[in-house]
Amino acid sequence: MSSSFKRLLIGKPIATEHQHHERLNKITALAVFSSDALSSVAYATEAILAVLILGGASALGLGLPVAGGIAFLLLVIAISYRQTIHAYPNGGGAYIVAHENLGPMPGLVAAAALLIDYVLTVAVSISAGVAAITSLAGNWGAPWLANYAVEIALICILIVGLANLRGVKESGVVFAVPTYIFIVSILVMIAWGLASVLFGTAALVAHSATPAIGAGESLGLWLVLRAFAAGCTALTGVEAISNGIPAFRKPEAKNAATTLSWMVGILGIMFLGITWLADRLQAIPNELTNETVVSQIARSVFGVGPIYTIIQVATALILVLAANTAYADFPRLASLLANDRFLPRQFSSRGDKLVFSNGILVLSLFAAGLVMFFHANEIAMLPLYAIGVFLSFTLSQGGMVIHHLREKEPGWQSGLSINGLGAVLTAVVLVVLAVTKFTHGAWAVLVLIPLLVLVFSRIHGHYVRVAAQLSLETAVKPQPVRRLTVVVLVSGLHKGTLPALELARALAPDNLTAVTVNLDSDHIVKIQARWSDWGCDVPLVVLESPYRSLITPLLNFIDEVDARYHDDELLIILPEFVPAHWWEAFLHNQTGLILRTALMFQKGKTVISVPYKLGH
Amino acid sequence: MSSSFKRLLIGKPIATEHQHHERLNKITALAVFSSDALSSVAYATEAILAVLILGGASALGLGLPVAGGIAFLLLVIAISYRQTIHAYPNGGGAYIVAHENLGPMPGLVAAAALLIDYVLTVAVSISAGVAAITSLAGNWGAPWLANYAVEIALICILIVGLANLRGVKESGVVFAVPTYIFIVSILVMIAWGLASVLFGTAALVAHSATPAIGAGESLGLWLVLRAFAAGCTALTGVEAISNGIPAFRKPEAKNAATTLSWMVGILGIMFLGITWLADRLQAIPNELTNETVVSQIARSVFGVGPIYTIIQVATALILVLAANTAYADFPRLASLLANDRFLPRQFSSRGDKLVFSNGILVLSLFAAGLVMFFHANEIAMLPLYAIGVFLSFTLSQGGMVIHHLREKEPGWQSGLSINGLGAVLTAVVLVVLAVTKFTHGAWAVLVLIPLLVLVFSRIHGHYVRVAAQLSLETAVKPQPVRRLTVVVLVSGLHKGTLPALELARALAPDNLTAVTVNLDSDHIVKIQARWSDWGCDVPLVVLESPYRSLITPLLNFIDEVDARYHDDELLIILPEFVPAHWWEAFLHNQTGLILRTALMFQKGKTVISVPYKLGH
Repeated sequence: MSSSFKRLLIGKPIATEHQHHERLNKITALAVFSSDALSSVAYATEAILAVLILGGASALGLGLPVAGGIAFLLLVIAISYRQTIHAYPNGGGAYIVAHENLGPMPGLVAAAALLIDYVLTVAVSISAGVAAITSLAGNWGAPWLANYAVEIALICILIVGLANLRGVKESGVVFAVPTYIFIVSILVMIAWGLASVLFGTAALVAHSATPAIGAGESLGLWLVLRAFAAGCTALTGVEAISNGIPAFRKPEAKNAATTLSWMVGILGIMFLGITWLADRLQAIPNELTNETVVSQIARSVFGVGPIYTIIQVATALILVLAANTAYADFPRLASLLANDRFLPRQFSSRGDKLVFSNGILVLSLFAAGLVMFFHANEIAMLPLYAIGVFLSFTLSQGGMVIHHLREKEPGWQSGLSINGLGAVLTAVVLVVLAVTKFTHGAWAVLVLIPLLVLVFSRIHGHYVRVAAQLSLETAVKPQPVRRLTVVVLVSGLHKGTLPALELARALAPDNLTAVTVNLDSDHIVKIQARWSDWGCDVPLVVLESPYRSLITPLLNFIDEVDARYHDDELLIILPEFVPAHWWEAFLHNQTGLILRTALMFQKGKTVISVPYKLGH
Repeated sequence: MSSSFKRLLIGKPIATEHQHHERLNKITALAVFSSDALSSVAYATEAILAVLILGGASALGLGLPVAGGIAFLLLVIAISYRQTIHAYPNGGGAYIVAHENLGPMPGLVAAAALLIDYVLTVAVSISAGVAAITSLAGNWGAPWLANYAVEIALICILIVGLANLRGVKESGVVFAVPTYIFIVSILVMIAWGLASVLFGTAALVAHSATPAIGAGESLGLWLVLRAFAAGCTALTGVEAISNGIPAFRKPEAKNAATTLSWMVGILGIMFLGITWLADRLQAIPNELTNETVVSQIARSVFGVGPIYTIIQVATALILVLAANTAYADFPRLASLLANDRFLPRQFSSRGDKLVFSNGILVLSLFAAGLVMFFHANEIAMLPLYAIGVFLSFTLSQGGMVIHHLREKEPGWQSGLSINGLGAVLTAVVLVVLAVTKFTHGAWAVLVLIPLLVLVFSRIHGHYVRVAAQLSLETAVKPQPVRRLTVVVLVSGLHKGTLPALELARALAPDNLTAVTVNLDSDHIVKIQARWSDWGCDVPLVVLESPYRSLITPLLNFIDEVDARYHDDELLIILPEFVPAHWWEAFLHNQTGLILRTALMFQKGKTVISVPYKLGH
């Protein structure tokens, strides 16, 4: 039953030998690796404006300068990552680079930061995608759809999660079509908007309900820094290409570097273009209609029609693809950590479909939790976002600095200065992010990262201790077993008890006892009356239990028996009847299970389960 | 850890021999058994008015006639139940009476109806109690407390549930004090209100926010019937005394009957008095302030002062006691059903404190679910309530009719006519309730009752089949075990594997195999390299697994081995290492547990767990 349901959901298993790697050309690779980065233009401008609006209408004009600063930062990070690509052609994720160059602890910090950010990528991207769709619906006369944003987002997470459990073939086309439609439509929108503004034909954004504009919070450096920090979410996902170099065609590093340049160029143009248009067309975050800024611009440029619809749908699709990127990254990083014994080893085993099923499940659960907690409001989640990415940027660039100093490869001095600048700049931005967003939720991330690192270390410690205790290096051959002592635990005298008693007689004909606990005197009298006929000559001990506890008297009795001989092996026989259907087990006291668990954890005793299978 | 937490919550265990029965005098018994019935005056009048208000202001005048009809019904039911008390001096709950006289199926229907109603008793009473407190808080300047009604109600359920798990001593005083304060204060309120009205000094209820009065739904018979049905919730709990006869002092039946008469008299006076006052003082359900009708009356009669406060607190307390009654009834009925094998036997076992812990837990969970679903709005829950009670009234009275016809005890003819009238009248009311409340939620109860009966029957069928299969009547003595075949399942070669291999050698030196599954070729090569040194001369078989499944290849191999001999007993040895702490188990693949379960359910094989206990 449960197995066939699983087959229906995730399909047939895939044999290990069919594991394969598709090499991607640059056009496809751009689509596969850039959805996370490019899709952030769907909310980054709005995030900046949502802060500036607190400073009143005049503050909104600062949107473009702030976006310009972020675009400059993007350029620096991109140049830095080109260095990483050439230094780590097999894939230079922050965990690997930081671990190799800075040591295990910084590596774990980078890993913790990235895991948190991947969860946020899913929650933010899916929520923003749903916002694109509900904005579209709102303009097509269905504003009520916005009331179901949380439900729609959860269904999207379920679908993306299941698709990944089935094993998404990164066939390129699936990624390429929506990504290029998104790129082209946004670029056309920017060009058309630019022309309209230049020729003076542009219409301002009309709001069906006028949003509140701040009465003018003192417009100081603080607000600008906060707006800058909010906009830095545009930079998430830039590192994706450096993680995925082995997927490129030869020469991998060179192709990856070229693709990175293209991606950054497109991202910069789209981000600045949207921010400029938002400024000119007076698009602002609107809490009343929940319409996104991009939807406002698109509607204002093209009117509510087919092109507007294409933009909104493409935006939603690329955001879902961005979430999908995290579904590749999170399980892969978790499996790296599990292989290095920092996470439970369950994260490192590939499931039926050759995917890391546990990583996919955990990512889905946490992302769904975030969506519910934040009511699918991506702007509210953004303060938690980007901190992890910038921490991993800083550690990764810092690692590259050490790499250059160590390797001293040709041209290492220029590499050193590039990565040094990158490290310093991202570190400064990290501090700005942490400080300005601290009270808006970033504190949670800053608490969670060290906590996760602690958990990683504890898990690692456990595995190291277990390995040491199990190692054969210090083992001595155990003594052969000379004498068996057998105790049969009896709850009643019925057909299920008889095979257990026979097995006991076969194992230790001279050294065995049956034992039962008196929970109901009538029941005990019945057992005793029939014992001479059916007890197979095994002596029966009845234990009293004034507090109606089953476990304690049995454990005490087993201790007594165990103390009798010192050269024996004690075997505890547990007759258990097994119902035909698993759910019928709920109709019986799970004493067998409880006893086995108690014996294992408290005594470490050898238990023999003798099942008696019941029919239908 | 978990054990000491349990001790802290529910206290020390109580020995079986300390089970005792306190006999109650009539004064105390009235308090113990009547809280459920009497407390319903806290919401019954409001329930009537909440329906009549839909018919406009003029319809509200029908409240008193409707209440009069209900009071008459109360009288008939009370006289009927006096018959039951004399016929079943050992306790005549509807399940027992219907089961004995009408047969098992009507008994189960009555039981299902009662179980549902007990859950509703808890949810409704606790919610009404919270409403009494939030109304009080609203008049003392803390209307915000109403926003936390759900949370307060859940905490109350938790407290009552824990108190019952600890074993509430029905010491009488705990019940008597709030019950008699409630009775006296409500009677004083009625008398004072009566006097104020007669002397013309009564003030009408002042509403801080005017509630909406219906524009005048057509005031037909339908609305009156709906109001009548709503008010019938006043009759819940009347059956409590007939369930509890053995707790009375001798002569039990006579004392119980007298107490029943007293209770019904007090209930009738309070219900009619409150309804009359509501009419005169123009107290009406107010959805804006959420103030209860009783609170409005009390405030209007006494002003917001000490007496008003006493009334509200006493109302809340007696409602909590009413919920507590269900905590005695539900687990007791569930244990009766479990003893008769209609519910899982876990319901029939007494816990540490001699209470039916599982029944208490299940009741708490369902009641908490209802409170959350209905946002602690007791008026919204009422359409589901009372149906179960009236179904059990009808079945119980119908059973009494058959009882008289069968027993033909002295004076059976008058008993027959009394119970016959009771059965017909409650049956008619049951139909009225089911029809008028159907679309307001009663359908759920009407679906749930047959569903529960079906579940009871299925459970019964299972137990009967199991008993037949396990019975020694048809048993033949099993053959002595002549030959042992041993298979050791190996996942790695480490210290934990060695004792298992030694045990295997001791059990079947000539007929044993070790087997492992190839999930990782490097790992297998390592095991094979060290097997000659550490394998204790046991032959090792390596199984291939193209789909990375562990279970399927092992099960197939075990089948093969099992097929070799026909006169052997197959033992499967499973070396398992046991971490020092239970939570560390999550860091290891639970293959041992999964294998044991798969072997038990699919094959019914004898499994020997050889634990290797790890240190800290």
